[in-house]
Amino acid sequence: MLAKRIERLTSSLVRDILAVAQRPGVISFAGGLPADEALLQLDMNALSPDLLSKAMQYGPTEGERGLREQVAQRMAKIGLNCSADQVLILNGSQQGIDLVSKLMIEEGTPVLVEEPAYLAALQSFRLFGADLKSVALQAPADMSALNQVLGEVQLAYLTPSFQNPSGYCYSREERIAIAAQLDTHGVCLFEDDPYRELAYDTPAPAPMVSFIQSAPWIYQGSFSKTLAPGLRLGFLIAHPDLMPHLIRLKQAADLHSNRLSQLIVNQILVSDQLEPHLAKVLPIYRERRDAMAAALQRHLAPYASWQIPAGGLFFWVKLNTVNDTLALMRQCLSNDFAIMPGVAFMASGRDEGHIRLNFSHAKPEQIEVGIAKLAQLLQAANAEKFDMAAGQY
Amino acid sequence: MLAKRIERLTSSLVRDILAVAQRPGVISFAGGLPADEALLQLDMNALSPDLLSKAMQYGPTEGERGLREQVAQRMAKIGLNCSADQVLILNGSQQGIDLVSKLMIEEGTPVLVEEPAYLAALQSFRLFGADLKSVALQAPADMSALNQVLGEVQLAYLTPSFQNPSGYCYSREERIAIAAQLDTHGVCLFEDDPYRELAYDTPAPAPMVSFIQSAPWIYQGSFSKTLAPGLRLGFLIAHPDLMPHLIRLKQAADLHSNRLSQLIVNQILVSDQLEPHLAKVLPIYRERRDAMAAALQRHLAPYASWQIPAGGLFFWVKLNTVNDTLALMRQCLSNDFAIMPGVAFMASGRDEGHIRLNFSHAKPEQIEVGIAKLAQLLQAANAEKFDMAAGQY
Repeated sequence: MLAKRIERLTSSLVRDILAVAQRPGVISFAGGLPADEALLQLDMNALSPDLLSKAMQYGPTEGERGLREQVAQRMAKIGLNCSADQVLILNGSQQGIDLVSKLMIEEGTPVLVEEPAYLAALQSFRLFGADLKSVALQAPADMSALNQVLGEVQLAYLTPSFQNPSGYCYSREERIAIAAQLDTHGVCLFEDDPYRELAYDTPAPAPMVSFIQSAPWIYQGSFSKTLAPGLRLGFLIAHPDLMPHLIRLKQAADLHSNRLSQLIVNQILVSDQLEPHLAKVLPIYRERRDAMAAALQRHLAPYASWQIPAGGLFFWVKLNTVNDTLALMRQCLSNDFAIMPGVAFMASGRDEGHIRLNFSHAKPEQIEVGIAKLAQLLQAANAEKFDMAAGQY
Repeated sequence: MLAKRIERLTSSLVRDILAVAQRPGVISFAGGLPADEALLQLDMNALSPDLLSKAMQYGPTEGERGLREQVAQRMAKIGLNCSADQVLILNGSQQGIDLVSKLMIEEGTPVLVEEPAYLAALQSFRLFGADLKSVALQAPADMSALNQVLGEVQLAYLTPSFQNPSGYCYSREERIAIAAQLDTHGVCLFEDDPYRELAYDTPAPAPMVSFIQSAPWIYQGSFSKTLAPGLRLGFLIAHPDLMPHLIRLKQAADLHSNRLSQLIVNQILVSDQLEPHLAKVLPIYRERRDAMAAALQRHLAPYASWQIPAGGLFFWVKLNTVNDTLALMRQCLSNDFAIMPGVAFMASGRDEGHIRLNFSHAKPEQIEVGIAKLAQLLQAANAEKFDMAAGQY
């Protein structure tokens, strides 16, 4: 009775983790929530009553013209030249993943994804029947593996700037080289870029799509990480040939995005308030990243290895001995803190002993407590293994 | 390179009409826009700053608990008993059509639709590959035709209350009889009910899903017609077995709906402001419906026939002689007014000479001018036909 694709709707594991992680008293490193302290303080009085009143009526599918122009202007500043006609306003960038899945993916369509990759993108691609071809994400990028898989796919989904979950940021040279490969193979690039502005050390290089010469491309960004996820506002920019299809898909999906959110964000961009807001937010996140780096160094060094991410919201931690991160996650939850098991981000389904730790939502003192608890669990697990190993002799 | 379904994304005809219809000076009967005078007057001061601030963070996929409870309570009043757990908050009810398409429709899935039916539902079903089986909508309902087609399908999409475009409202007896047929065949009913509250003479009977005993069912409603479409807020209620799938599909589509809109609508429902608002809105719409009925009677009686709709936003007019309503639509646009060609609502693609006229957006004096212009065009077309006929002798 139900469509076949429903069998591929992957388990609600992550939803369950996030639900438990929101219990009072639980320290959560599981989600990707902005710090409450970093969220936009809404100033409804800044909005003209006339505009507010107009925002109650149906609006254009593409989004408000003024907001699309603001987005196009901001994109030019980071090296992506486009016209406002190439901008489609979304209910958050998750919606872009749904629209691009509809545009490009049917039963059996081969799609290149990084391993690890953003789990909700993997879920959407699988829902539409994609045959996921993963390339291990490593520093430096494995150009030969990429080149081989690009010969087999029609779409490549990449998150080049401060990726969720790995934190990896492709260098400018890597972006140029991969764009050239995409051109050679004529593969469509879908570049997901929600973390670009959360750069704590140096800015991310220009978007990968800006180096593409001839291949089709779609780029998307979000206001969830910079302003407020509750506004559900993101945007997509695409090669002009793809826009008519994407606009119709958006219309079929929900007619258009919330106009109140569009009005709020447009007002912030027009009045140049995004940069001052970011200037307040970035130190909060940098402090928490550094707090987690220090806590990891203090407690986890015997059990794991990691890189300090230069941006984004996550540490991607490789555990030395654990190879069932789902079981570890359950143990953490019984100890009133939450992590995200790395296996959820692997298209291959392989558990390579990674966990993802979010550092933006918990306060520095909670980070210290949570990481110390994690170290205790890992120490106990190691001791048990040692005992078992000893017992065998 | 693109998914096959993109070939089925039907033309942007309707988008084009609506774009032209919004040119200054054009009288539009084409869209389904609420009267500007009837839109919610936002009172942001009614919202607690604490709640506003919380609404900036990520929220639950299902929607805000309080709003879901409010919806469930309102549903009980119209005869649909459900728990808040069965309520999923949507970005407007168009999103429900997308989610149900994903849930139920794949390449070749047979789906019962009324002829005529809401065009954006037809578009979404086609996009997912439905084999549309239409049953002519007539008064009284053709129970034998319905019964036959219900034997061939897995999903039935019906708009029982003040349908867009026909205005038809199934009687209580018809709802009971069709629900029994659905039970017999075990066919899932998808009841789309956005116009229920816009009842100008007598209230609509209880929802058809409330008479279902055993078949699966999904019901959806909207705040677009009662409060404001720009808020993009609707809701879906489903048989408990279908909820886990629908919630995951919603999560994959856009994580969750706009929290600001949810907060605004919840505040209106909790403080019992929806009924007073409707009491102000309904007389505006009733006046416009009556103005259009009078103008049609005055100008169009020689050329067409119609029923006066007891609710909703449209007249569905059968022209006596015209059988190319697309050509008529173009003529109307060159004369600075807009209609919607009936063929757009026909799953069969047959043009039976209907046009849809919206009465909610134009003011009564514009209605008079527009309908008089339409009569002139029809008179000229008739005269031409008479001349041509005469010329043949």
